[in-house]
Amino acid sequence: MPAPNALYVQSGGPTAVINATAQGVIEAVRRARPAVGKLYAARNGILGALHEQLLDTDAASAQAVTALGQRPGSAFGTARYKLARFEDDEREYHRLIDVFRAHGIGMVFFNGGNDSMDTALKLSELGRRLNYPLQCIGLPKTVDNDLPVTDCCPGFGSAAKYVAVSTREAALDVAGMARTSTKVFILEVMGRHAGWIAAAGGLAGSGAGDAPHIILFPEVPFEADRFLERVRQSVQRHEYCVIVASEGARYADGRFLSEAGGADAFGHKQLGGLAPVLAQMIQESLGYKHHYAISDYLQRSARHLASATDLEHACAAGRTGVEMAVEGGNAMMVTIKRTGDDPYTWETSAAPLDRVANREKELPRGFITDDGYGITAAARTYLQPLVEGEALPPFRGGLPVYEEIDLPSVEKRLPAFD
Amino acid sequence: MPAPNALYVQSGGPTAVINATAQGVIEAVRRARPAVGKLYAARNGILGALHEQLLDTDAASAQAVTALGQRPGSAFGTARYKLARFEDDEREYHRLIDVFRAHGIGMVFFNGGNDSMDTALKLSELGRRLNYPLQCIGLPKTVDNDLPVTDCCPGFGSAAKYVAVSTREAALDVAGMARTSTKVFILEVMGRHAGWIAAAGGLAGSGAGDAPHIILFPEVPFEADRFLERVRQSVQRHEYCVIVASEGARYADGRFLSEAGGADAFGHKQLGGLAPVLAQMIQESLGYKHHYAISDYLQRSARHLASATDLEHACAAGRTGVEMAVEGGNAMMVTIKRTGDDPYTWETSAAPLDRVANREKELPRGFITDDGYGITAAARTYLQPLVEGEALPPFRGGLPVYEEIDLPSVEKRLPAFD
Repeated sequence: MPAPNALYVQSGGPTAVINATAQGVIEAVRRARPAVGKLYAARNGILGALHEQLLDTDAASAQAVTALGQRPGSAFGTARYKLARFEDDEREYHRLIDVFRAHGIGMVFFNGGNDSMDTALKLSELGRRLNYPLQCIGLPKTVDNDLPVTDCCPGFGSAAKYVAVSTREAALDVAGMARTSTKVFILEVMGRHAGWIAAAGGLAGSGAGDAPHIILFPEVPFEADRFLERVRQSVQRHEYCVIVASEGARYADGRFLSEAGGADAFGHKQLGGLAPVLAQMIQESLGYKHHYAISDYLQRSARHLASATDLEHACAAGRTGVEMAVEGGNAMMVTIKRTGDDPYTWETSAAPLDRVANREKELPRGFITDDGYGITAAARTYLQPLVEGEALPPFRGGLPVYEEIDLPSVEKRLPAFD
Repeated sequence: MPAPNALYVQSGGPTAVINATAQGVIEAVRRARPAVGKLYAARNGILGALHEQLLDTDAASAQAVTALGQRPGSAFGTARYKLARFEDDEREYHRLIDVFRAHGIGMVFFNGGNDSMDTALKLSELGRRLNYPLQCIGLPKTVDNDLPVTDCCPGFGSAAKYVAVSTREAALDVAGMARTSTKVFILEVMGRHAGWIAAAGGLAGSGAGDAPHIILFPEVPFEADRFLERVRQSVQRHEYCVIVASEGARYADGRFLSEAGGADAFGHKQLGGLAPVLAQMIQESLGYKHHYAISDYLQRSARHLASATDLEHACAAGRTGVEMAVEGGNAMMVTIKRTGDDPYTWETSAAPLDRVANREKELPRGFITDDGYGITAAARTYLQPLVEGEALPPFRGGLPVYEEIDLPSVEKRLPAFD
């Protein structure tokens, strides 16, 4: 029996280091041969598997694979797409097995976050259900850092570094002109359900009077009066106030602040997310001149500011996933296990997919200061190693070089799927 | 007669490299001695001169001065403050001369943009008016790049690099997930009156189908229908559309788009700037899923991504200003003069302050493509050298180290001013 071919799938929102995991997978498969046959990459995530749009990674030179690992965003395309429950609709599952069978695919490496691990779990159960030999290994990836069991998620460390650096830099800008100009600056960051990224903003200062003066976490119910009083105090004491606000900041009843805006004259719901809502609140209550930035996709694509630690995690996750599959593993997700804080040490390990799929890890309450507006020493101990180390991509003409990887499409062997 | 003391003043919005100009001034004054006496820095810009809040730069070690040059934001504090016309109110002018006389200050280095050069011009005329020997030299600084005569303004190259890199990175993020998720991404950048920073976003791609697909300039009247059709075409052709939008984008009648939002249910004017207005327009007309980022202060404080060329310009501006003053110059601004495009060569030169104060340099129409949505080869030739070269600050613990410079206050010799 020939060795099984393998398929690598990117899923969900991209990160600055997702392709370092792809690099890890490709390099490990090449080393694992002949235990593994060909390695394909799915075009546009699970959609590529359904529509038989496969790319042949074997065509890439070692140099191209290295360059791949330096490119942010999803190099092969990703998708937000949830398979139906097997019990409700089997069609997609039969199609996937048809595609896997047609291309001799017996190993799937599924690179994603919470929702993606649910898909990975479904795939891992497919072999048994449909009597086809299939192993599926989850490779963690999410800037939200909310996968359980693993100490951290590849992609988070770089987003954390971006937010910490941006907060530090913008705070210096505001501090220098607060006397006659902007007194309050808000940086809106990602994290709809968990405050990990917002917490990373806390690394910008050492705590005592340093910016950020206020962090808003989804985990801490927002109280307008207390918040505004804190802004006032900060401006009074330091001449300015820097706020890092998670997009998931919400009231005690669960309503997101970002949904609290009114409707305009035409009945259109006010767009613009959280930062403008906070800014308007501050304007009306305190009258301070304010500015805000919204990091949005910049925080998860800023490969120029990637954390070297995060990059190593991402690459190792890919490598370890291949090693696990070669040893016969299935229905497991690679995890990053912290083995020491100072100096920071870590290794890769594994967790059953059914322990990680569809579960979210909140920021521990012990990482948030008693007043709810800052991070504790425990949070710093956790976060600091994850932003450690610089890993610049090559630059040319003043800009980072992000090569597109040019892979041939694998010839289709099946009729189209619709 | 003892050599005149000198005063260095930061003015207007900070940049990522403003303190490199301070470094240039301090180092040049130390070399110019004994032709120059002490060098003071004003606390909070011109306010420090009015209120006799002066810092003694001589206390800084050479090492501290180097570190100063690596710190974004205004290290001594800056101010947005316009002096009254001499004809309308002489009080502030007499006070300034009192402060200068009390501290033996005969040279002022005024580091700022358009408005600040107006203040510098007023100061330069003061000596003659009030019969006090005073030289004032303007040192250019503005991310807006809109000072006339000079080929470019220190601060701009780094903001341009930030916007070009961010556009390139976010575009890769969007491209990879456009099939099932966000199709339109908007990056809102600074430049209320001129599209220089927005133009820099164009460096992210080479033009042919690359992001950004649309740039909105203040110089090109906004036409909603044409814009929306262009967004639709881009999504149809490339699956996605990346837009770099200057905050100064406006309709033919001069109204800013950012002011076009409605009022909410309480009659509050809608906050949130340009990006949400464009997003809402796209949502309603085309229904595409969209995201936007607002760079705000991040783009002018991102010292971690400073352009090495910009940094050299900034430092040279400070040095040259001191040399000009030592040679007896007054009422002049240092300029950056381009002497070659390929390879890029430059030197410092000078322009009379009355030729630069209160004048704005627009983006030349020849830098904008005929359709109004992109940049031409001429723009690339101009912009490219300005973003060239990386100049990372030192990093510690994963974050850039930005040292505060600790300077003693100069003892006051005058009563308070109010």
